[in-house]
Formats: sequence, structure tokens, C-alpha cells
Amino acid sequence: MNVFVLNCGSSSLKFQIISTDEDQIAKDTDQQLAKGLIERIGSEAIITLQVGDQPPFKGAAPLRDHKSALAYVIKWMSQPETRIPGITSLNDIHAVGHRVVHGAERFKGSILIDDAVIGGLQDCIDLAPLHNPANLKGIFAARELFGPQMPQVAVFDTAFHSTMPEKAYLYAIPYQLYRRFKVRKYGFHGTSHRYIAFRYRKLTGKSRQDTNIITVHLGNGCSACAIKGGKSFDTSMGMTPLEGLMMGTRSGDIDPTVIDYLVHKEGSSFDEIFSTLNKRSGLLGISGLTNDMRELEGEAEEHQDRRAILAIDMFCHRVKKYIGAYLAEMNGADAICFAGGIGENSPTIRRKVLSDMDWLGILLDESRNQQAVRGKEMLISADDSRVPVYVIPTNEELILARDTVRAVKSLPFPC
Amino acid sequence: MNVFVLNCGSSSLKFQIISTDEDQIAKDTDQQLAKGLIERIGSEAIITLQVGDQPPFKGAAPLRDHKSALAYVIKWMSQPETRIPGITSLNDIHAVGHRVVHGAERFKGSILIDDAVIGGLQDCIDLAPLHNPANLKGIFAARELFGPQMPQVAVFDTAFHSTMPEKAYLYAIPYQLYRRFKVRKYGFHGTSHRYIAFRYRKLTGKSRQDTNIITVHLGNGCSACAIKGGKSFDTSMGMTPLEGLMMGTRSGDIDPTVIDYLVHKEGSSFDEIFSTLNKRSGLLGISGLTNDMRELEGEAEEHQDRRAILAIDMFCHRVKKYIGAYLAEMNGADAICFAGGIGENSPTIRRKVLSDMDWLGILLDESRNQQAVRGKEMLISADDSRVPVYVIPTNEELILARDTVRAVKSLPFPC
Repeated sequence: MNVFVLNCGSSSLKFQIISTDEDQIAKDTDQQLAKGLIERIGSEAIITLQVGDQPPFKGAAPLRDHKSALAYVIKWMSQPETRIPGITSLNDIHAVGHRVVHGAERFKGSILIDDAVIGGLQDCIDLAPLHNPANLKGIFAARELFGPQMPQVAVFDTAFHSTMPEKAYLYAIPYQLYRRFKVRKYGFHGTSHRYIAFRYRKLTGKSRQDTNIITVHLGNGCSACAIKGGKSFDTSMGMTPLEGLMMGTRSGDIDPTVIDYLVHKEGSSFDEIFSTLNKRSGLLGISGLTNDMRELEGEAEEHQDRRAILAIDMFCHRVKKYIGAYLAEMNGADAICFAGGIGENSPTIRRKVLSDMDWLGILLDESRNQQAVRGKEMLISADDSRVPVYVIPTNEELILARDTVRAVKSLPFPC
Repeated sequence: MNVFVLNCGSSSLKFQIISTDEDQIAKDTDQQLAKGLIERIGSEAIITLQVGDQPPFKGAAPLRDHKSALAYVIKWMSQPETRIPGITSLNDIHAVGHRVVHGAERFKGSILIDDAVIGGLQDCIDLAPLHNPANLKGIFAARELFGPQMPQVAVFDTAFHSTMPEKAYLYAIPYQLYRRFKVRKYGFHGTSHRYIAFRYRKLTGKSRQDTNIITVHLGNGCSACAIKGGKSFDTSMGMTPLEGLMMGTRSGDIDPTVIDYLVHKEGSSFDEIFSTLNKRSGLLGISGLTNDMRELEGEAEEHQDRRAILAIDMFCHRVKKYIGAYLAEMNGADAICFAGGIGENSPTIRRKVLSDMDWLGILLDESRNQQAVRGKEMLISADDSRVPVYVIPTNEELILARDTVRAVKSLPFPC
């Protein structure tokens, strides 16, 4: 099957076309045929499109909404000179898989989209007002452009975490607020944590039940996950992706009273403060420079910029604390796995996170650590480290494509 | 010296009269002469007063404010039949020591109160609107009733934590919000954590610099502290006492977006939500029964009440996570010390917190654990526990009295 994997943000559209089926899943021979990214939808959009490993096409075009953006991709895909292997027209796409951020308690796994599912997704908008509406736009655009007969599947960021125990997902607020309004921790990046756990099993030959690991996804959004017996046991993001680790522009954990205090001190509205916590905090807020870790590392190394150094220190300090918390609540772990743009490419951050953790038996091998960049999947801990540490480049799109095949063919969802 | 130690809450007044001086501090022979508690100030107040170990006097009286309450105590103290050893009149009190909740960044240690200090305390009201005004009422009442010549000393809940490093106390929000409005983690219960660390040194003969421990104060308010080289390195409460562990009525850590969500879903005001997070959450909120851990343990054991069990599970789960986080950020610890009403008296909670932590080398001795109740200071871990665990009944009043002596006599503040 050729699966069109779609990930719509508020003003962006990411896609991949992946060839996969039961046999390819079993043999791990799925193939990415094409991919692309359209940003700044709504004005002059910036477009990057790529077939296999060929040089990407870069362009710009006025695209007013997600539907126009998707139409642009479909037109490109279908024109003869593009030459995606096996794809000459819309008919060569067999299913569409959508990344959906929030499935609340209703969606605990990937699901074939019908009107009832769309109604359920609309019910979840309150919980993810920044994300789910864009995902729905993608679903509606795909319905229109691929036609109503095209099978579409929703894969949820929250689903992997639906196995968390009550003590991990409940907030200590009046219980009826959970019952009535579903206020609880949901967790995100589930598809990534699930993929990392899957690769860990492949690397080590462990069974799902024997998989007790800590996965750390450090990208522009960051989250850690305690995986016990192969299932999510706890995770750092909360009801929304704001909670937990420090991120590119999000604050992560904070005393909620800060919000009230700033409203009174600064005279801002509550909406402005929440916007600050989501969009102007994290690495950007502390450094006053950028949310890009590579740039911060440069500022710290080349110019000894005090606040770039501080932002990096805070970032690593908080990852360290979550690793400790999860080691305590799981009574140890068999491995720690790093993924995400920062986790896969920054030996410096990994070294700082894991420094001075020998009491816990965590020992990095610095030469391995330095090698693990640009997509390399490898062990980076010392041979005598009590807890092996891996870098495992994540691949959410692959899970999206595979789950789409499984949902369409009514197969189980092992990973 | 006879020190009158005063701790004023919004509608309560707690006091102790403690005989102490340099010599008694050195020999650890300070003596508590009397103590008392007045609750429900503003209406028909409930009064408990006690001389040494004698049976307490219990009564009620209409006391309209903190000044009337303090006048009531002074009258009781001075009447001939009360017979507090060495105290026959106001003249036998030599100094007053006040517990002050929030000293912000201005007060990093105990200080003799003058007009400038009072001005500074008033400046801190914004940061602790629930606590500091009551502390100030106590200071003004004492000035009036003990006279302007009586030395008065402020001892701060925040002071011990003033040694936290930047990476621990900063929130990942725009840095100018820290610079301009002092938004940061301050931490509380400092006097208690300091006392516990002091007793740990006494018990083990360790030097201050060699004191690397985790102190866990579990009372109606709860906080954990990572103490490195004898100094507070990190703590769980934040800009206010709302952050961190789950408490009797406070939520502790929570995704701040919950506030925004509830305002829109429930139609409550922001003030009502903050009030819920502070006063109707925690053990009370989850159990729907009580904020009293003893009662919850009873409901859990005798009636297998599901939500009482859940509240206890959540409470212990969160303490466990903080212990793990602090073990990671300090690269291990030499001991874990429990204090506070729950920490000193509940073998069940201590057992649940420390269960399944053998991977970290933490092993409880259950028979010792059962013995450590009602003020017993003792080791409760197994002899082969990698991390010894102690119960150390806290005594904030003693630190208050000693710091008062030191401030009055311009001595250093070693503990």
C-alpha cells in the first residue's frame, strides 16, 4: 500500500508518502517514497518537496488554506516530471494517515475515520485548541481532494499514554473535575515514544513485557516517558504539551500562581500570560536569543553568552530530574533512549544531562556519544554502565503509515 | 534568655516560650517553658495553653484580632496561678521571634526587626498575600504589647533556600520577568529543612560540608529539599507553597493550562480556581473526605474506600518521584530524612514511599519503621540499605528561638 501520511499544524502541512504493508512491516522494509513541508499557509507559503533522496524542490506560492496546500502537493505528485516510484496519479495512493494531537480518553488507539470519529475529534477541541482544529482541517481537505472513498486513519499523540495508571495521570484537584471535565494528564509525543520503544526491542531482542526504559524526546517540544512492561507508565507532558520539561518556547513545569501574580503585576491578560508560557518561554525566554539549541550551543561556546549557558544548564537540569524521578517510580530501568532533533544530534546536551550520574550507575562513553549524530542509531554508554544509554532516531511517520495499514486491514496494533 | 516565639496565620496564633542562650545552644539544653495555640481569631476563638508537660488549659473567648489574642496570652502568662518557670511578668520575656513566610530575595537570613525591615516585609506581601500580612499583624501586635524596646526578630521560611543555584530556582519564562518582578522559585519550610539537616549532623557526626541529604517534610503542607554540602540545592515548593508535592488541600504540581480550561469549562473565575487549587485540592480533593492523613488511612484500611486509597497512592507516588529527581541531580545522597506530622507518625506512608526502591539501594527495616512514631528520632532503614533513612521530628520553634538569640546578640547563624 502507498500511504499518504499527513501532519497539519496551524499554518503548516507536513507529509510523507510511504510504501508499506503487512509483509513490509514484518520485514522492516517499508519505504519512504516522497516527503514535503509547506509552511506559512495563509500567506506566501514556503514549499519544500522531495522524491526519495533526490535534491529537494524549493518554491513559494500563495496558498490560502490547508486545502489549497494539499491540492498543491497532489498536483505536484501527479505531474509526470515528479516521478515518485509507483505513483502517477491520485489512484496510486491507497490510504491517508493523519497525525492527531489529542484523543482525550475517547481514542486509545489508531482508528479508521468516519463521521462518528470526526464528531469525537471535534469534542476534543477544547482540550487541544491549538492543535486539533488544524488536524481536522487536514482531514476535511483530504476527504475532499482524495474523495470520500479513500480510507483515512487517525493516529493520536496521546494514545500510547492511555495505559498510565491513575496515580500517574490524575492531578491532585477535586476528583469531580476529572469526572466531569476530564481534567487529567494525557501526555503527548506518544507515537515517538512508542517508536523508540519498538526500536529498542529490535536492538536488544527484548520482549514487550520486558521493556522497562526511559525514553527522552528532545526536539522543539520535549517530553520524557517511563515505559514499564512495554507500556507508558508516566510521562512529563500533561493535559496539554505545556507541562514537563523545558522546551524551545514552552516553560514546562511552573508554579501556577505565577500566572495570577503576573496578571496583577504586569497588567497582562490571562490569555497573554498563557501565550507567553507557550510561545515566548523555554530556551527562547531564558536566553532572550533563540529557541534553537544549535544556535544556543554556538553562543555558549563561541561567546560564552551567560544566558545561553544558563538556558542550556536549566534545560539539562530538568531532563536529569525527570530521569531520576522515573528511575525511582519504576524501580530502575534497563535503558535510557534519546531521540528528537536535540536528543539525536547534540552530544553536548546528552553529556550534560548524564554527567555526574555515576551514583546511579549511568556512565557515558564520550567517543560513542560524539559519533551519535545525524540519524545514527547506537549505544552511547560505557560498557560498564549499569544503565545502557542509546540514541534512537525517531520516526513518527513510519508508525503513522503502519497504523494506517493496520486500521484499513483491521489488524492488531502491536507497534 | 526567654524567647517568645510567635507564628501568626490568617486567623491563628501559635506561640512557644523557650529558654535559650549561647551556652544552652552549644549544649543543646534549650528548654520549652510553655506553648499555646489560638484558632478562629475574629470570632469565638478556641484556646489551648500549656505550661511544660502539665495538662493544657482549654477555653474559648471572643478575640477580634491578633492583638487581642496576644493580649490574652500575655495576661495568662503573667497571672500568678499560671506559674511558667522563671516568668512572672512581661519583663521576663527578653525577645520575640517571628516566623515570617516569605522573605523574597531581600531576606536571606534571620534579622532584627526595625522600620526598614517592616518596609521590606510589606514589599513582600505581593509574593505571599495569604501569609505575610498575618505575620506582620503579629509583629505590630508584639510591638504594641511588649513595647517598642523589646527586640524582635524575623525568621524566614524562604531563607534556607536562598543558596539554591540559578538553574534550580529559575522558571523557564522570559528572563526579564525574573529581573523585573522577581518571579522565581523561593521554596518554603526552610526552617524545618534546616533543623532536620542540623539534627542529621548531630546524629551522624558529619560536617556541614559533608551533608548531602534529602529531607522530606510531610505535614499539612509538604515539601522535599535536596541539601548539598549542607545547603539547600533544590526544593519542591515554588514561588508560593502551591507547587510541588501533593498536600492536605493543595494540588502541588499541575499543568497551568488546567486553570484556563476550568475557567472556560466551569465558568468559575480565576480567583475561584486558585482558591480550589489551594484549599480544596490535594488529599481532600481526591478523597472527597478529608485532608487528614490519619483519617484517610483509616478509611483505606477499614473500609477499603477507593478514593482514600487513591489519594494515598498519589501522595506517595509523588514523594517517590521527588526523591528520585533529587538523587539524580545530587548524584546520590547520604540519607533520606522524614519529618512533619505525616513523616514522623505514619509508618504506612513511609513504607509506601520507599517501597520498590531497592534498585536505588533503599531498603526499609519494617520493624524500625513501625517504632518510629510520636516524636522518636531514629534510623528506619535496614543495615544494608545503601541510603540510610531517618525519621527526624522537626522543631521549627527551636530554630526560631535560637536565631532570635543570635540576632539579638549579633552572633553568626550556623543552624
